[in-house]
Amino acid sequence: MERTIYFKNSPKIIGVCSIGGPKECAGTLGDKIEIKLNDDTFGEKTFEQAESKMLYAVIKNAIKNADKTEKDIDCIIAGDLLNQIISATFAARNFSSGYLGAYNACATFTESMLLGGALIDGGYLNNVVCATSSHFSSAERQYRYPLELGSTRPPQAQWTVTGAGATVLSKSGGGVKITGGTIGKVVDFGVTDVNNMGAAMAPAAADTLYTHFKNTGTSPNDYDIIVTGDLGALGSRLVKDILWEKGYDMNKNHVDCGELIYNVAEKEYQGGSGAGCSSLVFCSYFYEKLLKKEYKKMLFMATGALLSSVSSGQGESIPAIAHAVVIES
Amino acid sequence: MERTIYFKNSPKIIGVCSIGGPKECAGTLGDKIEIKLNDDTFGEKTFEQAESKMLYAVIKNAIKNADKTEKDIDCIIAGDLLNQIISATFAARNFSSGYLGAYNACATFTESMLLGGALIDGGYLNNVVCATSSHFSSAERQYRYPLELGSTRPPQAQWTVTGAGATVLSKSGGGVKITGGTIGKVVDFGVTDVNNMGAAMAPAAADTLYTHFKNTGTSPNDYDIIVTGDLGALGSRLVKDILWEKGYDMNKNHVDCGELIYNVAEKEYQGGSGAGCSSLVFCSYFYEKLLKKEYKKMLFMATGALLSSVSSGQGESIPAIAHAVVIES
Repeated sequence: MERTIYFKNSPKIIGVCSIGGPKECAGTLGDKIEIKLNDDTFGEKTFEQAESKMLYAVIKNAIKNADKTEKDIDCIIAGDLLNQIISATFAARNFSSGYLGAYNACATFTESMLLGGALIDGGYLNNVVCATSSHFSSAERQYRYPLELGSTRPPQAQWTVTGAGATVLSKSGGGVKITGGTIGKVVDFGVTDVNNMGAAMAPAAADTLYTHFKNTGTSPNDYDIIVTGDLGALGSRLVKDILWEKGYDMNKNHVDCGELIYNVAEKEYQGGSGAGCSSLVFCSYFYEKLLKKEYKKMLFMATGALLSSVSSGQGESIPAIAHAVVIES
Repeated sequence: MERTIYFKNSPKIIGVCSIGGPKECAGTLGDKIEIKLNDDTFGEKTFEQAESKMLYAVIKNAIKNADKTEKDIDCIIAGDLLNQIISATFAARNFSSGYLGAYNACATFTESMLLGGALIDGGYLNNVVCATSSHFSSAERQYRYPLELGSTRPPQAQWTVTGAGATVLSKSGGGVKITGGTIGKVVDFGVTDVNNMGAAMAPAAADTLYTHFKNTGTSPNDYDIIVTGDLGALGSRLVKDILWEKGYDMNKNHVDCGELIYNVAEKEYQGGSGAGCSSLVFCSYFYEKLLKKEYKKMLFMATGALLSSVSSGQGESIPAIAHAVVIES
């Protein structure tokens, strides 16, 4: 069984764009976000339409930032948390490019980069957009409770990021490249608390990291930074503990996008989550760091909790997954 | 913009498995279905759990039929119609292989074959399972009305197939191979009738077929058979009309899986639909025809309507997509 793949031609990330809601723009990375919303409806009638418009905006601007036009884009690979990934579909409707819908919850962003990377590296396509989004209000009312209910949140909860990010992958150009990655597998440790995604995702995240280190013969020290998607504070600690037990010390160079995006010390408990969390943080903060060669080799892994309100309602536990990509500059 | 891709090494389809519910097994292709259910709950408590178990069963058996073991399978690419594609996720949970979730509604099966084909053809993976499922009762209560309501169906309606199909793609072995395909784009002609998927999907289906013929310099006569996923009787007629106007005559060699699966003349109106429709029909009926070389070159295109109950409820029209693969023996 082979889950680690290598890109011989190293697809380049030639342009990105990020968008964030008011809360995200007020957070630690606010200055880095390209499109700053001061209204989380983005001028739309519904939160779902706002989310789709956010995804459309980052795709459109990432193409522009990459000095490409829509006609250059062979395919858009996108996904989001809404039922039937309608944010992605309705965003893709506005483009004449091909469209491949992906869904691995909050791990969708790195899933799309693995798939987009393979389609370019293998010589099948020239330019592919990889994009994901999430919206606090559309996610909250779909997965949890009506917003009007004003439910309180337990301390292990995370806050779904209102934001999106898009990358343009290309066979040539640019200094930031994807050199490979490891496909995640579904791991379920029996966690049933839908407010504790960090605990549900940690074993899957640890499995992908361990598999990646083992298959590539690398260790955490071989990466300038190891970035996880939205494990949050608790989930991050669990992953580091699990890997420590397996002989890998990530304490020095691990950060989590969910921990970075808000000022966790304040009131967001475990930090941010959502399919837009890792894409927003990568496209706003980390891409610039890579461009400036402040990080030369990054292990970037989004993590996803694969539940639905139906699966949880029927008593199922929460399976999770994590996909890792190696990004170098 | 390049939407047509070519597989130089032609990934092989080395094993398949199909499963069908009682109604599907009583249909025209019933004899060809490998696992015949006489109880559409498959011994489970809920229809959702039954659907996931169906998907698990075809994946497991396709691997066995391909003379492989679970350890040989690098990755499972799967999707279904349920929110957050839980049928696919919970099926994949039972395997230690990698998992990539795909969602393009009823076009997911050929989407997964394009992605799986590229991952094998490019030399990244050795064996990939592509699988999709659907279940009448889980789809009906998610998308439309509670089953207990006993709603009547208008004449343009289709019937969601209770079934699943899985293929094992491999870099070597077997006589049936995927030589390329065309990635679909999102097409929306403004259809808002959620009971008329055929009309919603026909323009997307026509676009992919037209693009494929144009890009490859082929015409319908170059294929022994052109198989669409679940356009149904009305949708099939629309596609043939649109292509006729563009100078391509598919009247002689086009069939639709949705039209084939039930005895349409009876009472299923436009025929079958669902993400499991095309995979069930391919894995039960067409794969055998390809193995026996009764068809030497097939253009196989699943079609999907990308709506959700939320998008329709918010007044949106129904975008659609279709992905085509060329399968040769």
